[in-house]
Amino acid sequence: MSLNSLDELLSEQLQDLYSAEKQLIDALPKLASAAKSPRLRKAFEDHLEETKLQKERLERAFTELGIKKNGHTCKAMKGLIEEGEELLKKRGIDKDVRDAGLIAAAQRVEHYEIAAYGCARAYADRMGKQTVAKLLDETLIEEKEADQKLNIIALDEVNAKADET
Amino acid sequence: MSLNSLDELLSEQLQDLYSAEKQLIDALPKLASAAKSPRLRKAFEDHLEETKLQKERLERAFTELGIKKNGHTCKAMKGLIEEGEELLKKRGIDKDVRDAGLIAAAQRVEHYEIAAYGCARAYADRMGKQTVAKLLDETLIEEKEADQKLNIIALDEVNAKADET
Repeated sequence: MSLNSLDELLSEQLQDLYSAEKQLIDALPKLASAAKSPRLRKAFEDHLEETKLQKERLERAFTELGIKKNGHTCKAMKGLIEEGEELLKKRGIDKDVRDAGLIAAAQRVEHYEIAAYGCARAYADRMGKQTVAKLLDETLIEEKEADQKLNIIALDEVNAKADET
Repeated sequence: MSLNSLDELLSEQLQDLYSAEKQLIDALPKLASAAKSPRLRKAFEDHLEETKLQKERLERAFTELGIKKNGHTCKAMKGLIEEGEELLKKRGIDKDVRDAGLIAAAQRVEHYEIAAYGCARAYADRMGKQTVAKLLDETLIEEKEADQKLNIIALDEVNAKADET
């Protein structure tokens, strides 16, 4: 894939995000099933529904920009998800501590997306592609909110339970 | 490594961050050399010096907590850095577009660290380990500032140049 214009960089970043969202749609149900805290489980389930909408927004951005999906795999998201899944495979781990660890893994994922959507939105803005910028901004706001929600669950509940073990 | 207490989770997260910082110390000089924009190059060089101090802060936290380094490799940071380095290997890429791409890669790295230091600081806070919490907080502030600085360079200069190509 050539990278000789900001337009091409935007396409490349959107392909990366599309792969990231698809990987997350596969991973979030596993995180939800593993969560001991009902509140955390619900946060993962809610974010799964949001993530499906975010994938659709990217598809609308592709249509808007005339981009064809190229099957690119976002390796960084693969690594981030693998780190979360390693927690699920660990034997004999305390379930409250695991909840805290799942939040830590999920916040890394959210922050990856915050950085990536932030950059992509800035490129779209710069090039005056307002429809695409708006779609990316809607998702960016949701990712920041998802991160904040996880933070609150950690500070309100999960870290305290993990500390009592 | 067992994960049966918040204390053990904190240790695990600090080992992860220690590996992340070491990998960054190796990677940042390559990003600095590749940057076309002198302002971006300086930002990478400055952040290299900060990153060395951040590694030292982690060493002080290890001493404080009686943790021995276990040689763990942070796979997510490995993936993030590889994505940045792929940009450096691409042939015939426009140098302004590459600068924009380097910023996008570096902001993903900063956000990984923001999430990770944020979680680790929360665990230290929760357990009343104030010396460690303070060390982690100092770095967290620097990571947020580094991310903001990159953002400003992108919006002020680099994205516009990449858009002119």
